[in-house]
Amino acid sequence: MRIDVLTVLPGLFDCFLREGVIGKALERGLVSVNVYNIRDFTTDKHRVVDDVPYGGGPGMVLKPEPIFGAYEKLSKEGPKPFVILTEPWGEKFNQEMALEFSKLPRLLIICGRYEGVDERVKKLVDREVSIGDYVLTGGELPAMVIMDAVIRLTPGVLGNRESLEADSFMDRGLMGYPNYTRPAEFKGMRVPEVLLSGHHAKIERWRKKESLKKTLKRAPELIEKLKREGKLTEEELKLLKEIEQEENIGNG
Amino acid sequence: MRIDVLTVLPGLFDCFLREGVIGKALERGLVSVNVYNIRDFTTDKHRVVDDVPYGGGPGMVLKPEPIFGAYEKLSKEGPKPFVILTEPWGEKFNQEMALEFSKLPRLLIICGRYEGVDERVKKLVDREVSIGDYVLTGGELPAMVIMDAVIRLTPGVLGNRESLEADSFMDRGLMGYPNYTRPAEFKGMRVPEVLLSGHHAKIERWRKKESLKKTLKRAPELIEKLKREGKLTEEELKLLKEIEQEENIGNG
Repeated sequence: MRIDVLTVLPGLFDCFLREGVIGKALERGLVSVNVYNIRDFTTDKHRVVDDVPYGGGPGMVLKPEPIFGAYEKLSKEGPKPFVILTEPWGEKFNQEMALEFSKLPRLLIICGRYEGVDERVKKLVDREVSIGDYVLTGGELPAMVIMDAVIRLTPGVLGNRESLEADSFMDRGLMGYPNYTRPAEFKGMRVPEVLLSGHHAKIERWRKKESLKKTLKRAPELIEKLKREGKLTEEELKLLKEIEQEENIGNG
Repeated sequence: MRIDVLTVLPGLFDCFLREGVIGKALERGLVSVNVYNIRDFTTDKHRVVDDVPYGGGPGMVLKPEPIFGAYEKLSKEGPKPFVILTEPWGEKFNQEMALEFSKLPRLLIICGRYEGVDERVKKLVDREVSIGDYVLTGGELPAMVIMDAVIRLTPGVLGNRESLEADSFMDRGLMGYPNYTRPAEFKGMRVPEVLLSGHHAKIERWRKKESLKKTLKRAPELIEKLKREGKLTEEELKLLKEIEQEENIGNG
């Protein structure tokens, strides 16, 4: 997979491309990422990337010409890219979209700026994407978030065991169980006995129950939905009953 | 405002702290950010930050001791920090939360890892926060997203005009209007005439109408909610009627 990024702040990406899981994936050639400065595609003497908005108002708007210029040049190299624009009012990014993007041969991410991008740029765009309901200074962090979620799904980037773990989360949206590592006792807080028991079946059961408990508390509507759609196993339904009974005792 | 970050990948933050709006805010001393390597708070010879989970399973779990050690050392310096843990199943981060955080004197962000953090660390945590419904390799990008959203709300970081703009978005969640800049015609696409007219009141009206149109299309439930709560002005209600009529003509 190849990912191209168009930005006015290319320096923001250096660390992301060098460090951690993504840095290793790039080093191993599992995916290639090219970050382009929009300024390099200007054709005027002053290399202007933005200008005041027609009709007045605050902030500067990214000009259409350099972005079209970059698209035209880059799209000639290899397969036609799927174009994403980071946009505060775009479609909400989620794991399903990450999975969809991870199957494409090529992405081109245009980093919006909060102040705005000339509307005509959207002619090039396949999907306007927002990573959440909050306002950021620019589309660079969203571009990194999208790349991180997509690249970790690329075959070979994560070990098999970790990827399977992720899939089970993704599948149904159930929340993770609590994790503990050594020491068994720390500041008077003990690791739950079951995890120290070495009894595999009991551990599995405890983890499932804790996942369901957390999900029931934080996203009860998801549990209801999974129930309606028949997506909970018999064991899970039994565990949910247990949780309800325990809570009734706790409240009574 | 002071923000401390605890991470196993401090190098990921260098670019973020150097570039763009955040880099400038730090340079001007409007906010201070300290990124700490959790490894520097280990006390064992091998400086171990993670270990296998009790009960088995994939991935490594961040150990409690270095994180508690860091908290105890850092919390002695100045006001008690409000502690945030980035956590895929945490509360969803939004603009309201960003505003709330921006008013605090001090934040401490613990970057989780997808594989997990020892559950006992949550004893230190005031808020578990997720930036969206997708899986990332770690909590570093979420920490940057939270900082970006929070720091841009800090007085003095943005010009007054831009901040006001953001507030109006935030207030009611209405979407932004389309932006255009020069040239007036590009590849056969012309800027809407009204924006070239110089007629201020007409421009304002057009922008409001476009915002409402986009919001109606992408988040109709929000418009319904604002209507129910009486949060739309008479002018906005009138524009919505116009939009409905135009669409009926379009469909009829």
